[in-house]
Amino acid sequence: MAQNLEKKARRAGALAAAALGLTGVLGACSVGVDGDKAADVDISRAATGDITVHGGARRLAEDQTQAIADSIQKSGAKNVILIIGDGTANQELTLARNYQWGAAGAIPGIDELPLSGDYTTYSLNRDTHKPDYTTDSAASGTAWSTGTKTYNGAVGVDVNGVPQRTILEIARANGLRTGDVTTTELQDATPAVQVAHVTQRKCYGPKETTEKCPENALENGGAGSITEQLLAARPDVTFGGGWATFAQTATAGRYQGKTLEAQAKERGYQIVRSADEMHDVTVADQDKPVLGVFADGNLPRIWDKATAVKDGIEQPPVRCAPNPAFTSATPKLGDMTQKAIDLLKNDKGFFLQVESGSVDKANHDADPCGQIGETVQLSDAVSKALDFAKKDKNTLVIVTGDHAHTSQVVEPHPELPMPGLTRLLTGRDGDPIAVNYGTSLEPGEEQHTGGQVRIAAYGPGAANVVGLSDQTDPFFYITDQLGLDRTKR
Amino acid sequence: MAQNLEKKARRAGALAAAALGLTGVLGACSVGVDGDKAADVDISRAATGDITVHGGARRLAEDQTQAIADSIQKSGAKNVILIIGDGTANQELTLARNYQWGAAGAIPGIDELPLSGDYTTYSLNRDTHKPDYTTDSAASGTAWSTGTKTYNGAVGVDVNGVPQRTILEIARANGLRTGDVTTTELQDATPAVQVAHVTQRKCYGPKETTEKCPENALENGGAGSITEQLLAARPDVTFGGGWATFAQTATAGRYQGKTLEAQAKERGYQIVRSADEMHDVTVADQDKPVLGVFADGNLPRIWDKATAVKDGIEQPPVRCAPNPAFTSATPKLGDMTQKAIDLLKNDKGFFLQVESGSVDKANHDADPCGQIGETVQLSDAVSKALDFAKKDKNTLVIVTGDHAHTSQVVEPHPELPMPGLTRLLTGRDGDPIAVNYGTSLEPGEEQHTGGQVRIAAYGPGAANVVGLSDQTDPFFYITDQLGLDRTKR
Repeated sequence: MAQNLEKKARRAGALAAAALGLTGVLGACSVGVDGDKAADVDISRAATGDITVHGGARRLAEDQTQAIADSIQKSGAKNVILIIGDGTANQELTLARNYQWGAAGAIPGIDELPLSGDYTTYSLNRDTHKPDYTTDSAASGTAWSTGTKTYNGAVGVDVNGVPQRTILEIARANGLRTGDVTTTELQDATPAVQVAHVTQRKCYGPKETTEKCPENALENGGAGSITEQLLAARPDVTFGGGWATFAQTATAGRYQGKTLEAQAKERGYQIVRSADEMHDVTVADQDKPVLGVFADGNLPRIWDKATAVKDGIEQPPVRCAPNPAFTSATPKLGDMTQKAIDLLKNDKGFFLQVESGSVDKANHDADPCGQIGETVQLSDAVSKALDFAKKDKNTLVIVTGDHAHTSQVVEPHPELPMPGLTRLLTGRDGDPIAVNYGTSLEPGEEQHTGGQVRIAAYGPGAANVVGLSDQTDPFFYITDQLGLDRTKR
Repeated sequence: MAQNLEKKARRAGALAAAALGLTGVLGACSVGVDGDKAADVDISRAATGDITVHGGARRLAEDQTQAIADSIQKSGAKNVILIIGDGTANQELTLARNYQWGAAGAIPGIDELPLSGDYTTYSLNRDTHKPDYTTDSAASGTAWSTGTKTYNGAVGVDVNGVPQRTILEIARANGLRTGDVTTTELQDATPAVQVAHVTQRKCYGPKETTEKCPENALENGGAGSITEQLLAARPDVTFGGGWATFAQTATAGRYQGKTLEAQAKERGYQIVRSADEMHDVTVADQDKPVLGVFADGNLPRIWDKATAVKDGIEQPPVRCAPNPAFTSATPKLGDMTQKAIDLLKNDKGFFLQVESGSVDKANHDADPCGQIGETVQLSDAVSKALDFAKKDKNTLVIVTGDHAHTSQVVEPHPELPMPGLTRLLTGRDGDPIAVNYGTSLEPGEEQHTGGQVRIAAYGPGAANVVGLSDQTDPFFYITDQLGLDRTKR
């Protein structure tokens, strides 16, 4: 068995290296598996041989009964890292694996997670309170952050608009350090669900809140906009985009008439605006929380756009290329994740949420290259978290998507046009792959889908993801694994 | 904990009963969980409360670490039942759950399987031998039946056309009983991959083989058509459709000039043509194998068609209805599965493959009702297998799809037309659900998709499905769990 482990670890390394060489896009991307780490649990899961011969394509070198049993660790974690790929379900994972690591390859980090399952993501209709079969990111995020189903658009409130406490708030009240990291605007739904409670997700700043969520506006006695609630929630580490909103001014309360930037400074936040400034931060705690805001809006995607079109079958397959708008001034998700872990680790433990948010946004745009690049970022973040967890041995890492999306890997037929098709030339196999976006007759206006979504994990309590669960379950098992008192304020 | 189990078991029963009452379609459908069985492993997995309140939607009543650890049984099974939903991945499972059992409900059988994961389904390009990112049912079935990746259209042969031994053939050579059950034609790819080796899946009878697979034709020294190879492979139990081909005559060999029906009789098969005749069979072994053929082509689907259309958003939501063409003369998949188990169980063990084949066919047709009905049939078959396995304690049950497909649960927007949309009024929630078919601009010409597919299991060796594996892996762990000598002839 030791020989198998070594062989598989070597192979995973070689595959990842080949992917890097072929695409040249990733730079210092984490490779995920090396000999030391693979010796922990055998989970490289790349094909073990020549895929054209009997047995060559299998990913399991031997019976996994003992290995999976060994993956089930005792309950009770000191740290939890929850990593979300927005709109990232089985089709998105497969597309990224095929393009970047080969159909027979393995996604570093993600495919190494030993335990896996699926959860249901439905939300609720605001009027009827019956199931809404296709969720948005606000209702889905509220499900895991609070344990409560709600309507599409709701952030941290239930179907009646009543605020629900979040994992991050409860962890902080219990003395743990907390972090919230994303590639999108900090006010976007997924990062917001851990720190804010508003009835409409667009209530980024005081201006939008007065208009769209008057019951949440400070001048009406509410808790304020998402940004104001974020500042009050005071995570030790907050990294993402959305600087534009910080120029707005508070409409009431202690900071009335001051900008949100000024408020952040008065509240003691260390504000950092670039990758270099982020790397220079040495401490992040309740005295000096760090607020890293690296773009006016969403962070740029690492790969350039390649939009699907109706006559995609007639176009030559393209290679994905780096996005020139992504410069070294912007931190990558893996770097933000690593920095957050470095700053958060402490004797009492931490809760960290990390989101690769633009897998979803590129999917809405019918842009497979943007989508794959952000899934590569997701993989890199998971590798960083897994590296830490394997050494720490007391950290639960959970990786999932918040909802399924549009993209589907397909076989194009010239006589059967599809609504939105792109052909890419894959990096590892050098083979054309076709991707269809079919939830809209207007390519670039794609919609979420309602399928159950894969959830995978490593560490203490990871067994809770196996089989079928619901999107509200993580709230309970994460707070339980951390031993939190959910009533503590 | 005992109280929780009891509560969950009661709830699952009530949900299933409600589903039956609301649709009136299922008749004697197996409910799946009752108190006795749930006491084995707590896996009902329906929501535990009022889904509109905090915690009500969760499916896990408590930490699952011990329950999942307990689900991992020793390696080594006496019997294996492999159940395939053709074209049945996460979107198809979710659509069926939402419609038939409610978004917060659980699919009997399928959602009770304690261990789950995903496998990659890519096939190979016949010319380049590189990955083909979207498989068909022939290549995918050949992957698990033989452990060898091959090209789309290949049945039981590798990428060079060389025959590969199948689980069913190896099990029979090792003295186990074997069965092959489907709702499609017996010559269709999924049932064929266990019993035949032809270079093109359309080679149903001698006529097609002479035309399309001359190298396989008897008159050229080949092993003959799929039907002739099925008769020679001699499973103890074979149930499905495809009677039309049995009227063809052999072109060479011992049975030259005789029909395949006459050949089956001469070979000692008991031929049954209706549900009643099937139920009257009392023995099936190598002396008297049973061949049940219940339709000229595919078996009729249990639910009537409801085709998706481009202006589906403007149509009122419909209820699915029973298919008048499905009469009591045709056995349901659950009944065929139960009969096969009853006939196959013996001291030496058995291998049984069961397929709900028309989930795929209805998906190709953009027919959500047909698709859901056949997923209900799949659920029923899994419940029957699981009931047996829980009592037997020596049976591995594996449930998966052979490839992902088109259907996606979506949120319709009047201003955003979709290529193929139907709205259904769900049975359990009484709520409109929208389904989009978007892999073709011609509704009814939908295509397979290439996403990784869920695989779930119960019993000895079930842990092999957890995490990420490949579609060729089941060949190895199934034959290993059964302790088969793969070289024995």
